[in-house]
Amino acid sequence: MERVESHASFGGRQEVWRHASTTLNCEMKFAVYLPAQALAGERCPVLYWLSGLTCTEQNFITKAGAQEHAARHGLIVVAPDTSPRGEGVPNDEAYDLGQGAGFYLNATQAPWAAHFRMQDYVGDELPTLIETHFPTTDARGISGHSMGGHGALVTALRRPGRYRSVSAFSPIVAPTQVPWGEKAFTAYLGADRAAWTEWDAVELVKTAAERLPLLVDQGDADEFLAKQLRPELLKAVCAASGHPLTLRLQPGHDHSYYFIASFLGDHFAHHAAALRA
Amino acid sequence: MERVESHASFGGRQEVWRHASTTLNCEMKFAVYLPAQALAGERCPVLYWLSGLTCTEQNFITKAGAQEHAARHGLIVVAPDTSPRGEGVPNDEAYDLGQGAGFYLNATQAPWAAHFRMQDYVGDELPTLIETHFPTTDARGISGHSMGGHGALVTALRRPGRYRSVSAFSPIVAPTQVPWGEKAFTAYLGADRAAWTEWDAVELVKTAAERLPLLVDQGDADEFLAKQLRPELLKAVCAASGHPLTLRLQPGHDHSYYFIASFLGDHFAHHAAALRA
Repeated sequence: MERVESHASFGGRQEVWRHASTTLNCEMKFAVYLPAQALAGERCPVLYWLSGLTCTEQNFITKAGAQEHAARHGLIVVAPDTSPRGEGVPNDEAYDLGQGAGFYLNATQAPWAAHFRMQDYVGDELPTLIETHFPTTDARGISGHSMGGHGALVTALRRPGRYRSVSAFSPIVAPTQVPWGEKAFTAYLGADRAAWTEWDAVELVKTAAERLPLLVDQGDADEFLAKQLRPELLKAVCAASGHPLTLRLQPGHDHSYYFIASFLGDHFAHHAAALRA
Repeated sequence: MERVESHASFGGRQEVWRHASTTLNCEMKFAVYLPAQALAGERCPVLYWLSGLTCTEQNFITKAGAQEHAARHGLIVVAPDTSPRGEGVPNDEAYDLGQGAGFYLNATQAPWAAHFRMQDYVGDELPTLIETHFPTTDARGISGHSMGGHGALVTALRRPGRYRSVSAFSPIVAPTQVPWGEKAFTAYLGADRAAWTEWDAVELVKTAAERLPLLVDQGDADEFLAKQLRPELLKAVCAASGHPLTLRLQPGHDHSYYFIASFLGDHFAHHAAALRA
């Protein structure tokens, strides 16, 4: 494991590390923000952030204004890349399949299955690595944007007891019912839709073993709202299942990091309340 | 003048506009943040931000976390590009000359003189445009980073009474004495160093008609500190001239936007105190 970037930031350090992932069979980079408390050796909770289509580990750390919030709450923040990467890793010319579009699932179909196991990476390998190398408590939260909002919801719902808090910005809540998800799941999981449901937040809420409260922010001027995101499907299933959901439609906001930055402070407060409880 | 981007952000809007600049003889883009007060038609002070080498109007608005501060203080924030642009505009292969490296001066030498008049652009044409199209007061502040820190200091020092506040991050305080400045000034202004002094903050402080207080933040782990930035030269001339200077050396900080973001709140407070007085 090698540190490739290190920047002083709000009394802590924003770092980027490179390591050989055994889950993904390639070299991966991840970003980690260490607040002053962590630099002083104090154990801190960890908030994981999963980014959206086309992103790397850089987008969230350069555009969201996250460090100020992490410093204020004393949280370590980990932002992985969005897929396996590199010359030996399969890819597709489209922005919404292959590298940059891992969808935080474990692929079963060729040529993807040998590398595209992002669920095992973000849910197992990466947390183990983080908890070995940095001063963490066992309190974990998870959040993300768009494809990464889907990833945060699905990862928390699949692993009851593992996360104390979860939130999402503009998540793809029902990938089995929208074009982005249908395309990716067909490629990664095959044509049998029965295999898709375990990677769909709306489906997972129906049978969730734990009723972890969901905080979701969604811009009402988001160009992907009606076709790809469809938060009303999450609202309906949470109401029917008795799953606690705070869904906020933010007037005039789009799908950009300007939207994320505007409400990220609220999400950090939500996570910190649970992680520092 | 045409709006090319518009994003809801912290109760206001982050916009990007394109217009034909008569000063620079090319099409230019600039970014403008309009806080909620401005959207409601209330006149607001304007803070100008000048970016560094290689930057466009995008860097500051995507990486600095400025919108939260602008919203809190009710300031309009304007971030221009760093040089004239386009196919008809002269350029150089180096990152520190030509497009992306205007140095906020008025060039006198071929082939630059026909387009590279960034001082007239940021000091005259752009403020006139802003004050015509947006609800501004006549209170103006100016700040910037690196080459743009140089630009902010020089622009304020050359125009007594025009700005109520000025600050800079990691500024090139003495371009006539460092490699970046010597290279650019030779190209834009010619070999006669006598013509250079009117574009050098350390020289301008010696004869400043107005003692506008300077706030300067500088990271002590900045890779350009000793060779290109040399804040000790500004400190010495301010002490000798009785010019008020707050120079803060920030431990462990580098030349990046992580540094700017960490202390931008202090700079906004500095500007807001003067602009809203």
